[in-house]
Amino acid sequence: MAKLRMGMIGGGPGSFIGRIHRMAAELDGDIQLVCGAFSSDPEKSKAAGAAMHLDPARVYGSYVEMIESEQRLPANQRMDFVAIVTPNHVHYQPAMLALQGGFDVVVDKPMCFSLDEARSLEQEVERTGRLLAVTYTYSGYPMVKEMRAIIAAGRIGKIRKVYVEYPQGWLATDLETGGNKQADWRTDPKRSGAGGAIGDIGTHAAHLAEYATGLRITAINAMLNTVVPGRRLDDDASMLLRFNNDATGVLTATQVAVGEENNLNIRIYGEKGGLEWHQVEPNSAVLQWPDQPREILRAGWGYLGSAAQSNTRTPPGHPEGYLEAFANIYAAFARALRSRASGDRDFPTVVDGARGMAFIDCVIRSAGSSQKWTEMP
Amino acid sequence: MAKLRMGMIGGGPGSFIGRIHRMAAELDGDIQLVCGAFSSDPEKSKAAGAAMHLDPARVYGSYVEMIESEQRLPANQRMDFVAIVTPNHVHYQPAMLALQGGFDVVVDKPMCFSLDEARSLEQEVERTGRLLAVTYTYSGYPMVKEMRAIIAAGRIGKIRKVYVEYPQGWLATDLETGGNKQADWRTDPKRSGAGGAIGDIGTHAAHLAEYATGLRITAINAMLNTVVPGRRLDDDASMLLRFNNDATGVLTATQVAVGEENNLNIRIYGEKGGLEWHQVEPNSAVLQWPDQPREILRAGWGYLGSAAQSNTRTPPGHPEGYLEAFANIYAAFARALRSRASGDRDFPTVVDGARGMAFIDCVIRSAGSSQKWTEMP
Amino acid sequence: MAKLRMGMIGGGPGSFIGRIHRMAAELDGDIQLVCGAFSSDPEKSKAAGAAMHLDPARVYGSYVEMIESEQRLPANQRMDFVAIVTPNHVHYQPAMLALQGGFDVVVDKPMCFSLDEARSLEQEVERTGRLLAVTYTYSGYPMVKEMRAIIAAGRIGKIRKVYVEYPQGWLATDLETGGNKQADWRTDPKRSGAGGAIGDIGTHAAHLAEYATGLRITAINAMLNTVVPGRRLDDDASMLLRFNNDATGVLTATQVAVGEENNLNIRIYGEKGGLEWHQVEPNSAVLQWPDQPREILRAGWGYLGSAAQSNTRTPPGHPEGYLEAFANIYAAFARALRSRASGDRDFPTVVDGARGMAFIDCVIRSAGSSQKWTEMP
Amino acid sequence: MAKLRMGMIGGGPGSFIGRIHRMAAELDGDIQLVCGAFSSDPEKSKAAGAAMHLDPARVYGSYVEMIESEQRLPANQRMDFVAIVTPNHVHYQPAMLALQGGFDVVVDKPMCFSLDEARSLEQEVERTGRLLAVTYTYSGYPMVKEMRAIIAAGRIGKIRKVYVEYPQGWLATDLETGGNKQADWRTDPKRSGAGGAIGDIGTHAAHLAEYATGLRITAINAMLNTVVPGRRLDDDASMLLRFNNDATGVLTATQVAVGEENNLNIRIYGEKGGLEWHQVEPNSAVLQWPDQPREILRAGWGYLGSAAQSNTRTPPGHPEGYLEAFANIYAAFARALRSRASGDRDFPTVVDGARGMAFIDCVIRSAGSSQKWTEMP
Repeated sequence: MAKLRMGMIGGGPGSFIGRIHRMAAELDGDIQLVCGAFSSDPEKSKAAGAAMHLDPARVYGSYVEMIESEQRLPANQRMDFVAIVTPNHVHYQPAMLALQGGFDVVVDKPMCFSLDEARSLEQEVERTGRLLAVTYTYSGYPMVKEMRAIIAAGRIGKIRKVYVEYPQGWLATDLETGGNKQADWRTDPKRSGAGGAIGDIGTHAAHLAEYATGLRITAINAMLNTVVPGRRLDDDASMLLRFNNDATGVLTATQVAVGEENNLNIRIYGEKGGLEWHQVEPNSAVLQWPDQPREILRAGWGYLGSAAQSNTRTPPGHPEGYLEAFANIYAAFARALRSRASGDRDFPTVVDGARGMAFIDCVIRSAGSSQKWTEMP
Repeated sequence: MAKLRMGMIGGGPGSFIGRIHRMAAELDGDIQLVCGAFSSDPEKSKAAGAAMHLDPARVYGSYVEMIESEQRLPANQRMDFVAIVTPNHVHYQPAMLALQGGFDVVVDKPMCFSLDEARSLEQEVERTGRLLAVTYTYSGYPMVKEMRAIIAAGRIGKIRKVYVEYPQGWLATDLETGGNKQADWRTDPKRSGAGGAIGDIGTHAAHLAEYATGLRITAINAMLNTVVPGRRLDDDASMLLRFNNDATGVLTATQVAVGEENNLNIRIYGEKGGLEWHQVEPNSAVLQWPDQPREILRAGWGYLGSAAQSNTRTPPGHPEGYLEAFANIYAAFARALRSRASGDRDFPTVVDGARGMAFIDCVIRSAGSSQKWTEMP
Repeated sequence: MAKLRMGMIGGGPGSFIGRIHRMAAELDGDIQLVCGAFSSDPEKSKAAGAAMHLDPARVYGSYVEMIESEQRLPANQRMDFVAIVTPNHVHYQPAMLALQGGFDVVVDKPMCFSLDEARSLEQEVERTGRLLAVTYTYSGYPMVKEMRAIIAAGRIGKIRKVYVEYPQGWLATDLETGGNKQADWRTDPKRSGAGGAIGDIGTHAAHLAEYATGLRITAINAMLNTVVPGRRLDDDASMLLRFNNDATGVLTATQVAVGEENNLNIRIYGEKGGLEWHQVEPNSAVLQWPDQPREILRAGWGYLGSAAQSNTRTPPGHPEGYLEAFANIYAAFARALRSRASGDRDFPTVVDGARGMAFIDCVIRSAGSSQKWTEMP
Repeated sequence: MAKLRMGMIGGGPGSFIGRIHRMAAELDGDIQLVCGAFSSDPEKSKAAGAAMHLDPARVYGSYVEMIESEQRLPANQRMDFVAIVTPNHVHYQPAMLALQGGFDVVVDKPMCFSLDEARSLEQEVERTGRLLAVTYTYSGYPMVKEMRAIIAAGRIGKIRKVYVEYPQGWLATDLETGGNKQADWRTDPKRSGAGGAIGDIGTHAAHLAEYATGLRITAINAMLNTVVPGRRLDDDASMLLRFNNDATGVLTATQVAVGEENNLNIRIYGEKGGLEWHQVEPNSAVLQWPDQPREILRAGWGYLGSAAQSNTRTPPGHPEGYLEAFANIYAAFARALRSRASGDRDFPTVVDGARGMAFIDCVIRSAGSSQKWTEMP
């Protein structure tokens, strides 16, 4: 049995996330990058492909060319799926083309540029029966899966409060005018979409909250700020949340918190217990009780549930991190590709991707309203 | 020169905070508890006074009796000030009586029962020229004073974001129906006032945010919840904030966060740096920068400013805590009593107390409004 | 019933520990400082006494004068006990005088200057029936008492390994030549005794290890270093240990660990579980198991044993620290004074003090030997 | 340019470290596993190779067969190097065969079974000019490289103290009699060698201490224990150290510390500053000073030195871990293979491997001696 063959769209020079996708996909030895359209500049694409030791014949000058060319290859050679790692405004078109071309798709978050695009992608996935994964990385962490399992099993009771926060500091100054490629497109409404921080990291926080709790956000009371003068999109978001079980919460996402790295945190309190997790030290979660000692749950131990255990590669105390969480999404995607009928879909799907786009839309509408609460569909 | 003489109102059997006030007041050897009306039940008051080794003649059956009796004692014997440690509905009357009787006053937070009472106390302090301190304990911590000094000196630049959170878990069930005296009065609108969690701990969080940053909250967008069925006051608050320099923030205060102890935290981000402090490990603060290593500031070191240093009793690594922070408020109050003309008032005054009452009032109005923002006067 | 009356020997200008003893003794409202011989310079003693608001008639020019004068006072006025807070070479004589004068004694650690003095003090305590406490502060912490209780109850099984470490950094340079009074006497063999770091902090570590585990050190394999050139005593100690139950361990104590504050830590492993405690965050202890989540035990909770609970003054999350631990020793001493027959002696006694002196003696002998192991009596 | 081709010896069913080597080697996309002799049982080897999607023709029944067969392949197909991931007693023979067959070698630690074997390997590497890397994983962490760079630059001054500790808990019971394959061979002197814990993890600690500081251990005063009854090798080691610059230190390595995972820690103190690092949270290091705030150095920041930066794949706050550290060793090895003349050898070489064997030998000799110190060659 051969490895699954991946093609990549985007990920050329200056890309951060392309390299991450490649390492994550290949980590478990079940996927191999075989082709790519790494840049809209064919020369840059070629150079990138060469650096990855790819067959030059399968390094393409455009994603259109790639999808068309790969379709013509024999079934045992052509790529199985594409990973789309371009800026947000170049997610939809290649994803649609790939789905229509018979390829499954992994796409970086947010899934696309607008809620309309999201709806359209949902329909196309439905129509074609292909699989689409969105890399909400943080739900790939074993301890996040453990929290989800603990909550699903009712161990902390009905959820009452959810606090999720995602402070970063890297956009505390106007990096975008200084040639930083990442800052450039992420703060450009033509490439990033209607959301700045709320799209880039707020959607991660929202997905994490819903994934861990199994709840759905039903209403949002949001404030969006553009803190850095001259910036064209929000760089700071705070909001109060209502969930579908009457729980409430707070979500913050900011990129102007000077000195913060990538400090995604979540705390969840139920009637019977509480949970806490910090992405920067992802191998621990805290489980706490009204009258017993706080417990530190640690990745790799036998007392964890099956989801946490099967998403861990090392024994306790041999820390795994961001790449491994990312790889867990690819591994789940690969399992689903190999066993489509199983229904095993432990990765963020097109439904989650569309939900993220609805979240961005709802936050922007709420932030523009003088009414307290805006319903989330 | 003699010690300052303190009388106490409240603090009898079942009181948590009375003992704290006594220890804090006496810690630095400059104040001595000399009399008290510890309970409205004279027998209980006597017993409490005896346990504190007080002269039985100065253990009174009511605060009215105490204030009247102490007024008649010679100046070198009578108490210098009273500490009021009763439930909120018994703050105003004894405070007014004491001020009118020529005594300075320390009163536990929140300062009183209603905004009207607060306004009246402000006027009476103004009229009498006495001093009134409100024990917003957490601004007594040396590392909080250090944050305030760092911000005041402009080291982290103009403040942009303030996140303050105060989760506790002790009221996650309806303790009040089970005979818990602390829970009983704190959840009773007749004794606690219009605010539950928002008055009990939310005011601490608001004071901390304003004290550390030197800013003022100007508008609030709040959600108040009563999470535990049957409870008569809010036990959970979340709100978005605007400050007078255009900074924004988030404040949460909840008493239903199962497993949380007294987890007051603050993070503040300016244009140039960020600060973070956690009350449960109060001897550290984190100072962070856009391009330099994070710094851990620790109590007791010579690199700290004078306010932090003068509010510390031990060398680095000999942890001080809650009682010492509390004692710092008493020490500042004692300095002011001994040197009224100095203008040194490094303790929360009647103005801060009234501001706390205005905060409670504003939060409740906001929570009841469908408009997003409610102005804070 | 009156407060217990304390006299203090030492603690004048420049003293760190004198003020600590005064605060700790008085914290719980059961002891009052009533007299003192704060300095061998009568003027300095007077000034110190005045700053503490003492009756000038009871501020003495020498400890001899104090002990003699207090003996002549009526029983209901004279001091009940003395606290000796002088440098080590002035512990023995005042302690002997006090015991012989009918006073109980609290003495700072190490108990005295030499093992011979220790033996003599032990005999005098035995002869007079007075009580003597040595302020090994760290065994006063509630979470240390909890560890002791857990181990005594067999919850972690037979102890196998004990790691105790005590790094400080304040003597990383030759402070003693620059006028630092604390450094001056502590590095002077005529005032400190034969041990430098090993006496000043090593004895704390050894006491903590024995107190927490209930074991006894039986043999030592030590290295003592004088790291800072010109220093006259050791400033760095490391040693391997054997205990009386066949457990082994490691003890380190250094004062040249640049940047370390007062970082006393202990980890203890038994057949069934492990324990860990850090003095700089003293309100937590870690309890860990072979196959269950790590537990964080926190001061103030109802799940702790009675010793931890009764040595805590505040609810969970209201941190107590060094002064409160110190106060616990005074409180236990006070209880013993008030109820001598009870046999309740939850403070380090003359036996512990003598054991500390034997430890210093054994370490020095081991360090000077080319043989691996030196027996500890 | 093609990827480097790796062959693996060992790593079949039940192997922990084989999978780790495969993931680490391939992580950066520059190495590909192409063949293997995964088990001495040909059937198991075949099955393992199939699970890794290898060409069945290149899955061998023995390492002898593999080395011989690969030698016969064309240069552009045959493996470039072998990774030896068998138990310790099967390191030497395949390494010698591979070197003699013209292959470079990666071998898991400890390098071999005995000091004699180590000497012989050193000679063979010298003779053949091949490269040999030993996977002392922990020196692959970026923050360890940062510590090394800080020390090499003299920023913390001449080193005085080194504390390195490596507690694990997994061998706190006699797992080896219960069918645990890892425990079985590691506690068997015929497969593990003369050292138990001291070989398995003590060598990691010793390498880390020497790598980070640039110093050499010159003398050892060791205690070795077999704590678990019936065990055939040591499971617990503690020792005092002397270094070649007169610094001293303490090294502990134990596998009976119940509840510990893989808790390798190091603290290093120089004349001017101190450093601290914990493997379980590997992306931080602490840098501390006598009179300035403690600094938290974090992986991924621009203020770090080039070695730390070039050994990091993700931005700050996207945690990397054990696999990435492991991969850094493979990446350095790959760079050296591609550019043999460069002299760039930022991986543990045969010299380090031999030093580890000398360390084991010295510790065992010291532990058996009644003399305090045993020289390390």
